[in-house]
Amino acid sequence: MKIQIINGPNLNLLGVREKSIYGESGFEPFLEKLRSDYEDLHIDYFQSNSEGALIDKLHEVGFSYDGIIFNAGGYTHTSIAIADAIAAIITPVVEVHISNVHAREEFRHVSRMAGNCRGVIAGFGLESYRLALESFLMNP
Amino acid sequence: MKIQIINGPNLNLLGVREKSIYGESGFEPFLEKLRSDYEDLHIDYFQSNSEGALIDKLHEVGFSYDGIIFNAGGYTHTSIAIADAIAAIITPVVEVHISNVHAREEFRHVSRMAGNCRGVIAGFGLESYRLALESFLMNP
Amino acid sequence: MKIQIINGPNLNLLGVREKSIYGESGFEPFLEKLRSDYEDLHIDYFQSNSEGALIDKLHEVGFSYDGIIFNAGGYTHTSIAIADAIAAIITPVVEVHISNVHAREEFRHVSRMAGNCRGVIAGFGLESYRLALESFLMNP
Amino acid sequence: MKIQIINGPNLNLLGVREKSIYGESGFEPFLEKLRSDYEDLHIDYFQSNSEGALIDKLHEVGFSYDGIIFNAGGYTHTSIAIADAIAAIITPVVEVHISNVHAREEFRHVSRMAGNCRGVIAGFGLESYRLALESFLMNP
Amino acid sequence: MKIQIINGPNLNLLGVREKSIYGESGFEPFLEKLRSDYEDLHIDYFQSNSEGALIDKLHEVGFSYDGIIFNAGGYTHTSIAIADAIAAIITPVVEVHISNVHAREEFRHVSRMAGNCRGVIAGFGLESYRLALESFLMNP
Amino acid sequence: MKIQIINGPNLNLLGVREKSIYGESGFEPFLEKLRSDYEDLHIDYFQSNSEGALIDKLHEVGFSYDGIIFNAGGYTHTSIAIADAIAAIITPVVEVHISNVHAREEFRHVSRMAGNCRGVIAGFGLESYRLALESFLMNP
Amino acid sequence: MKIQIINGPNLNLLGVREKSIYGESGFEPFLEKLRSDYEDLHIDYFQSNSEGALIDKLHEVGFSYDGIIFNAGGYTHTSIAIADAIAAIITPVVEVHISNVHAREEFRHVSRMAGNCRGVIAGFGLESYRLALESFLMNP
Amino acid sequence: MKIQIINGPNLNLLGVREKSIYGESGFEPFLEKLRSDYEDLHIDYFQSNSEGALIDKLHEVGFSYDGIIFNAGGYTHTSIAIADAIAAIITPVVEVHISNVHAREEFRHVSRMAGNCRGVIAGFGLESYRLALESFLMNP
Amino acid sequence: MKIQIINGPNLNLLGVREKSIYGESGFEPFLEKLRSDYEDLHIDYFQSNSEGALIDKLHEVGFSYDGIIFNAGGYTHTSIAIADAIAAIITPVVEVHISNVHAREEFRHVSRMAGNCRGVIAGFGLESYRLALESFLMNP
Amino acid sequence: MKIQIINGPNLNLLGVREKSIYGESGFEPFLEKLRSDYEDLHIDYFQSNSEGALIDKLHEVGFSYDGIIFNAGGYTHTSIAIADAIAAIITPVVEVHISNVHAREEFRHVSRMAGNCRGVIAGFGLESYRLALESFLMNP
Amino acid sequence: MKIQIINGPNLNLLGVREKSIYGESGFEPFLEKLRSDYEDLHIDYFQSNSEGALIDKLHEVGFSYDGIIFNAGGYTHTSIAIADAIAAIITPVVEVHISNVHAREEFRHVSRMAGNCRGVIAGFGLESYRLALESFLMNP
Amino acid sequence: MKIQIINGPNLNLLGVREKSIYGESGFEPFLEKLRSDYEDLHIDYFQSNSEGALIDKLHEVGFSYDGIIFNAGGYTHTSIAIADAIAAIITPVVEVHISNVHAREEFRHVSRMAGNCRGVIAGFGLESYRLALESFLMNP
Repeated sequence: MKIQIINGPNLNLLGVREKSIYGESGFEPFLEKLRSDYEDLHIDYFQSNSEGALIDKLHEVGFSYDGIIFNAGGYTHTSIAIADAIAAIITPVVEVHISNVHAREEFRHVSRMAGNCRGVIAGFGLESYRLALESFLMNP
Repeated sequence: MKIQIINGPNLNLLGVREKSIYGESGFEPFLEKLRSDYEDLHIDYFQSNSEGALIDKLHEVGFSYDGIIFNAGGYTHTSIAIADAIAAIITPVVEVHISNVHAREEFRHVSRMAGNCRGVIAGFGLESYRLALESFLMNP
Repeated sequence: MKIQIINGPNLNLLGVREKSIYGESGFEPFLEKLRSDYEDLHIDYFQSNSEGALIDKLHEVGFSYDGIIFNAGGYTHTSIAIADAIAAIITPVVEVHISNVHAREEFRHVSRMAGNCRGVIAGFGLESYRLALESFLMNP
Repeated sequence: MKIQIINGPNLNLLGVREKSIYGESGFEPFLEKLRSDYEDLHIDYFQSNSEGALIDKLHEVGFSYDGIIFNAGGYTHTSIAIADAIAAIITPVVEVHISNVHAREEFRHVSRMAGNCRGVIAGFGLESYRLALESFLMNP
Repeated sequence: MKIQIINGPNLNLLGVREKSIYGESGFEPFLEKLRSDYEDLHIDYFQSNSEGALIDKLHEVGFSYDGIIFNAGGYTHTSIAIADAIAAIITPVVEVHISNVHAREEFRHVSRMAGNCRGVIAGFGLESYRLALESFLMNP
Repeated sequence: MKIQIINGPNLNLLGVREKSIYGESGFEPFLEKLRSDYEDLHIDYFQSNSEGALIDKLHEVGFSYDGIIFNAGGYTHTSIAIADAIAAIITPVVEVHISNVHAREEFRHVSRMAGNCRGVIAGFGLESYRLALESFLMNP
Repeated sequence: MKIQIINGPNLNLLGVREKSIYGESGFEPFLEKLRSDYEDLHIDYFQSNSEGALIDKLHEVGFSYDGIIFNAGGYTHTSIAIADAIAAIITPVVEVHISNVHAREEFRHVSRMAGNCRGVIAGFGLESYRLALESFLMNP
Repeated sequence: MKIQIINGPNLNLLGVREKSIYGESGFEPFLEKLRSDYEDLHIDYFQSNSEGALIDKLHEVGFSYDGIIFNAGGYTHTSIAIADAIAAIITPVVEVHISNVHAREEFRHVSRMAGNCRGVIAGFGLESYRLALESFLMNP
Repeated sequence: MKIQIINGPNLNLLGVREKSIYGESGFEPFLEKLRSDYEDLHIDYFQSNSEGALIDKLHEVGFSYDGIIFNAGGYTHTSIAIADAIAAIITPVVEVHISNVHAREEFRHVSRMAGNCRGVIAGFGLESYRLALESFLMNP
Repeated sequence: MKIQIINGPNLNLLGVREKSIYGESGFEPFLEKLRSDYEDLHIDYFQSNSEGALIDKLHEVGFSYDGIIFNAGGYTHTSIAIADAIAAIITPVVEVHISNVHAREEFRHVSRMAGNCRGVIAGFGLESYRLALESFLMNP
Repeated sequence: MKIQIINGPNLNLLGVREKSIYGESGFEPFLEKLRSDYEDLHIDYFQSNSEGALIDKLHEVGFSYDGIIFNAGGYTHTSIAIADAIAAIITPVVEVHISNVHAREEFRHVSRMAGNCRGVIAGFGLESYRLALESFLMNP
Repeated sequence: MKIQIINGPNLNLLGVREKSIYGESGFEPFLEKLRSDYEDLHIDYFQSNSEGALIDKLHEVGFSYDGIIFNAGGYTHTSIAIADAIAAIITPVVEVHISNVHAREEFRHVSRMAGNCRGVIAGFGLESYRLALESFLMNP
């Protein structure tokens, strides 16, 4: 089973940026733990601050992988282009958020892309990614 | 660990109602499977079509249980009273939805209560409840 | 032919409440007249001020009756849960209003549930119910 | 008792146009049936695609007829001029729609003219007209 | 003079819930103090989390009591059915709030029911109820 | 000096329609009085309930007359086509209203065509037309 | 007959300010001409940039004068306090504007006070005031 | 205890203006009665139609008085400057209204300043001021 | 191949009206040129300022012609009735505009009818019609 | 004559993505056909999923080419930066869409960039590009 | 070079009011420092809580001074009259704010007057005024 | 002191693009002048049309530089991702604009990022950058 994790803008600063919202740990140690916990899975990781690069990556993996776990950061709420990319590919996408976006500014309550995803998981810290992974195992 | 699952209006018709959206199976067989898969957990279940009864139940369990998994159905999008109840209790609540509410009518894209919950899980069929359960295990 | 008439909040006060809008006569005498005029029909009547009880009643009769005549009162304009209940059952529902809701406050011009009903009849006083009954006879 | 039926834009295409929404039969055969079912009534019929001609007709019959059954088609949702005409005449008007406008596009959920009519009947196919006729018999 | 105090959803948690907003003391001790301060008055108290039960109570007392002091909690901002009930009864109603709702979330700034009440008193802690009581004494 | 007075929909019912708003007298006696008061002026009059006919008339007189006094009735608030016609012609147009439209329903507070007119005069009964006439004499 | 002309903010700069919109001549020469043209009338003039002073003046003359001609400038579109003052007095008020406000920024298309005035005259340059004067002569 | 009562625009016309809304009696007799009923209190009174003068008064008394009872009239709904002044001072302010503003035009349902006040009392006629006074006695 | 060109309100003034927007030449010389350039095509032309007449024409040709090129002028943005007519007929319709409507007032950016047309061509002067003609040749 | 065709996000998936909307054929075969049909023209092609790269390309060709045919995909509806780029360059741009965007989701009905383009062509499949090409030949 | 600094409502309380937002120091010491730092400039200062007085001052200096530095406080967001005054005068105005208004309540994000000013400087504490002064030196 | 100047989309065309808005001179000569005027400062410059590249640059310098002067061009009004990046870094950012954005289209009046910046300077041509530089010197 091949899973692609994609992180959007500013998520490269995890562990550095606004720790009260996003927590103390960076993404890499978490990723390593995830890979060791799910040894049978092939888990790829990609991060970019560029909307275009995120779309390129969706196109690249979206016809061969079994699942995409996607935290699009700030693009979640504004990008029709990313939403269109998710609709255009075959691999199911699960939208994840580290923080509970519904408890933050109102513009974060709406997702342009959620309607084209299989589902949404938000608010569980980095464990949101793990839950998304579990969702693919439950429903391959 | 004591977990309360609460289902709101019309979810008693699962397996009967609009099968193309909600699936073929009723909630009870799923609940049984869940209990047998998580034998160590105490899992209570409550369903009501009444907003007031849902609030009563939140008050009843909200100071002693370890987690509440709550699918408030149509009240999700309109009920300030339920949102206030979630804010008033101590037990963390996870909002779940069987269908991907973001792929349906626009009024289902907004949740009055999500901001007061720990997180939201939507779109994974009945497995949304299982993922919520997992989230409490990951972060007791 | 089995018909269920359901009246929502405050309609128990008919004949008492705001007579200039709702008329002088209570619902019960009208119901008796209706039953005697349509002797061949089985006509059940239910009134509740509780959103949950209305949904319960819809579920109860919604898989066996031939028609439901429903005046949801103030819930008409706000209740997604009731609208979902109407979508979930099989029996066709006709939305009725005693007054012409379009000639009153703007928030009464929109119905959350009408889209899930077979049709809408509003503004004919208590005769709105009789017209709804006629509609089921025309199109059983 | 003199009744005027008025049909607005595109209703001349009934039986031709979008049969899945409006049904297979044209208006004329229905009208003949109606007249034979209500032999004691004088039933006039008028159809026009022109907003001005519809207003002219309302003025012409609106001070002498006993009732007007009016399906204003697309003008229902936009025409202040027609709404003003209904307010200006004496004959009561019943707004009818063949389809359930509330189950269609959102712009069809609002009627500019309903507030000036006696009542609204929508969603019963051509029988909406018959129900409107009945409403005048119940409340001459 | 017979006064009915009605408390809506979550107000049974006073003294337990969000003390920074609602204060430390529960409602019952306050009620006892109120009764002893106004010995000549008959003061009844009712609390429910159910919209329907609140409407039932309004109907029950709304034709015989001299005044109703009503804190509808979260239903204040959404319930047309409760607003209709207040319009339908004879006893004057004073809307009260413990906290200053205008200093909280924007959805709490609007009241569906205030227009049908005699007046509104908000922001004085539990003393809001006492001021409402005083208002009935000033203007029986 | 050649002046064209144009009256839009329902203004043919002046003196018949809603007298509390529009007054008791019809337009024709007023027109006669106007013509006798302004003997030197050539005053033409046209009324139609049809948007198209009103546009045709604007085109017909709009390149040769000295002024147009236009009460577009209900089309005032909705017709882009009439507004475009006024922009397309050379003769200056003064928008008039018999009633004070700003003291009526909110949809009457906005005029689609006023921005293309020379000015607006509203609220003076039939004298609004006389004031418009005066305005052309002051500023030929 | 006693007429009060009131000019609001920035109208003291007429003849100085934005000549392309408001014309070349100041208000005083126009006022003199007006007084000499209507020798039988008593015409008072007041200008202030202060909302409070305008309200004070309305109160002062609003129970004894026969008419008020009021150009409230920028306050037209925002001042509820001025609108309330007009509603509170007895003397009828005519709202005037030099420019055609409907051909300018959208926020100038709406008047808070027009609904409380007898009528509105806009777009005729300084002659708007003369037309307002005429309106009082036509309908004393 | 030093209390300042401040009345905003048009409240100098109480007893003169719109008696059906504001009652028959002027403010001064009421004030005298209030002072004699509360002999121990020092009650100052100020009225102005000017937003600036109201702000000046708030500044003047807002650091030394024990309470301010403020009816800002029409400025209630529009003035950020007054709201800022209330936030800037130390003395607690209670917003009062004579009429039930929620039963009037929609623009009166929202208060710019209420969020910065201690509380709001509306709808009790002149007794609204007395209730505000009581509120300061209850919570000095 | 039979093509019907339909022009809506004010387009009869082409070459006369607002030349800076619509160009110097009238429609007739252009039409002649078009016919001579496409000799094999049967090209009919119809212009009307009346919404009803435009609908009549759509009905008349909409079941037998191969294509309709339609510039509905100001009705483009407001007419549900015309949009319904386009949906009701069989012949494909191409919406055209001479000017770039998106570079003009905001109300011209939205088309009520475009969703029911095959496509839209705007901004190319009279050549918009020629491009529409080409589109029918490319896709008969 | 030098023409640049620019395709925005996801248009690299033509022939792969959502064939019911975008058709079966990829863009490259169409481009080859276009070049062979218009041998005299120099036609360049560029596709990118990156907003920045699209702007870079507009800058690069926008001062030397004779025309730009631009399908900005999802950026059409959100990108002020692209709209600004089109305004900043000299070469005229024609906005094209393969599908009829007006028959799809409402957010696709509005274009941020159309107002800065020469014109818009939408709904003709890949032939939209050919029509745009024709438009440059008609009006070089 | 003659510069007028104008401060609007509540800015007389600087150093007293909400120190966490506006800082600890009053305006006068800052003004003195400014005058000593720019000895060659003539710097006048005016503060008022009255909208009218602010407009009067703009008129007074607006045809002879070289620059106006204007912090209109709460009037910034609501006053059309002040915006009109700025448009009416000749002296360029720079809008300044002590706090970063964009980081505060949403109603402070919009300025009615900024469009008529030369520029805006916000968020630098009292140094915002100094930067405005510098702007006049850079561009006299 | 290390200062980073960042220019967003289309600002590479300064001196080329829309000179009436942005002025005649390019950015580079201005930058050179700036560096020579502030010899003690280290001033870096970066321009990109890519949202992602701008975020990358903010991350790169945002933990070590003393100040960032950022003109985000069209992204100012739409980019949540850039706003998040500014919130995530430590170096204070000053938002600058060459033109007075408030005097242009309404969509330019709102900034997504201003709330996360230290302040905003707009409207002073290229001197806006110099003023921003000064602001860092005043408040290092």
